Amino acid sequence: MIETAPNKEKIQQAHELITPYIHRTPILTSLFLDDLAGGKLYFKCENFQKIGAFKARGGLNAVLSLSAEERSYGVATHSSGNHAQAIAYSAAMLGIKAYIVMPDNSPQVKIKAVEGYGAQITFCKNTPEERESTVQKIVEKTGATFIHPFNNYNVITGQATAAKELIEDADRKLDVIIAPVGGGGLLSGTALSAHYFSPETKVYAGEPEGAADAVLSFRSGKIERAPYIKTIADGLLTYLGDKTFPIIREYVTDILTVSDEEIIGAMQYLWERMKIVVEPSGAVSLAAVLKNKELFRREKIGIIISGGNVDLGKLPF
Amino acid sequence: MIETAPNKEKIQQAHELITPYIHRTPILTSLFLDDLAGGKLYFKCENFQKIGAFKARGGLNAVLSLSAEERSYGVATHSSGNHAQAIAYSAAMLGIKAYIVMPDNSPQVKIKAVEGYGAQITFCKNTPEERESTVQKIVEKTGATFIHPFNNYNVITGQATAAKELIEDADRKLDVIIAPVGGGGLLSGTALSAHYFSPETKVYAGEPEGAADAVLSFRSGKIERAPYIKTIADGLLTYLGDKTFPIIREYVTDILTVSDEEIIGAMQYLWERMKIVVEPSGAVSLAAVLKNKELFRREKIGIIISGGNVDLGKLPF
Repeated sequence: MIETAPNKEKIQQAHELITPYIHRTPILTSLFLDDLAGGKLYFKCENFQKIGAFKARGGLNAVLSLSAEERSYGVATHSSGNHAQAIAYSAAMLGIKAYIVMPDNSPQVKIKAVEGYGAQITFCKNTPEERESTVQKIVEKTGATFIHPFNNYNVITGQATAAKELIEDADRKLDVIIAPVGGGGLLSGTALSAHYFSPETKVYAGEPEGAADAVLSFRSGKIERAPYIKTIADGLLTYLGDKTFPIIREYVTDILTVSDEEIIGAMQYLWERMKIVVEPSGAVSLAAVLKNKELFRREKIGIIISGGNVDLGKLPF
Repeated sequence: MIETAPNKEKIQQAHELITPYIHRTPILTSLFLDDLAGGKLYFKCENFQKIGAFKARGGLNAVLSLSAEERSYGVATHSSGNHAQAIAYSAAMLGIKAYIVMPDNSPQVKIKAVEGYGAQITFCKNTPEERESTVQKIVEKTGATFIHPFNNYNVITGQATAAKELIEDADRKLDVIIAPVGGGGLLSGTALSAHYFSPETKVYAGEPEGAADAVLSFRSGKIERAPYIKTIADGLLTYLGDKTFPIIREYVTDILTVSDEEIIGAMQYLWERMKIVVEPSGAVSLAAVLKNKELFRREKIGIIISGGNVDLGKLPF
């Protein structure tokens, strides 16, 4: 047990705290995909979650966990993706200020979504250093609380509630749950929920070959960078953090990599057969299951569909 | 009361009969779309139904209602769309023969779907006369039971189960349910379920301007043809039948027409905001609600998303 990691009660409390602000997303099934995979698949549809991704859970729990005084100064983060929307949405729900640092080359649709929640956007050059220094200045000036997209226990605890619901709502005991891994917020939360609420359920991760830092870290025992970054799964480009990695190392069974071709193939199955809009990162778990049929044969497999924020004008099929 | 129309018990029996073979599809909600419509919307996602459309319900109930002897001769229909798949799927579930007449210009993807269920396909020219005479010959030769896509009480009763579930699963009493209308199978079933299970709920229909036969019929009191046929909603081209029309006339409050532009706009909201794959016909109900905001303001509105079978390579946006 990792002493500092969120315990069972923390996850239960987080779930109660965020429930008024989230969707209890449905679990969908497909006999076609069951046959294809050779197992029984339970798809937890976090693409239907508020802001179109599981990130709403972690953002909400982090913001709701702040004291009244902390809330009065607002929250800040840097992100061009779903975490930006999650923090903007969470702040809007509580009527507090959100300061979001976005790269100046962010897609217009993502900028508009963040603006739509009333957040204050600061643009900067798209380098990690610029993003961090820009948000640091805002924090110093405003007193806002910085909320990291994944390396934050309140965020991890929020993300854990997706797997908790999946475990509670599936009509069978799951043999496996599989989630995608980027910075590891969803994966570490998933691993904790399985550990506490369904200890016999193994947790796997799916990771793009073109951002394969987590599998390297998992093998070497220390946080590694990806040898190269080139993948369509643009939500999974980051590397693990010092809070997510120890949980993953202790509670995750294995990390399975998939090619972009396999991700696109899985994505197409989800769109055509399940009739759901899924972003590439959200299809990585199914891709990993379909690539490793022998490993999962006849198992009951919970698959976390992490998000659905995709530009309909730029589909890869 | 229409004496021959299915009664409450018939719908309850149909629901029990088909339940093992269908998905109890989820109801999704969206605060964004609530705000846009000015009411509270409950989306019944029949795009997630078996074969990707509500038609599985009617097909199953019709096939399951046959005697053992009738089943032994199989079932037959003509359709290039969702009803073909519904009958093929239903027959496959019971291990009986299905003879499907399809126009020789049917899309390859629809032919493959029907073949995938093991049905026997006969191709013919794409005229109503050719389709009817071809299926008639098959029925005479094989003894198979012809199952009409909508003008059949067992089909209507099966389609009624979608609204029954919507009424049971919505967390509030619905003021309105709205469904699209083509031949009227779904609409008449919806109207019957509202009448029996939630009598204060009004039923409306959405219809494309480019296939506006039902609204004409509703006004004139007799079954009319559309003045012209030109719409993207290719599931709604047919006119009403002598079994569907009297039910619609008695239990439906009004039929609201929408343009293709409005259908495409609603479809885009459903894809982008709800993250669901919906075919044009499936977006007609939402289009009608968004076009008639004054009529539905502050109401609780059940919207039947009828199907999601769309060619991803040919999106209208």
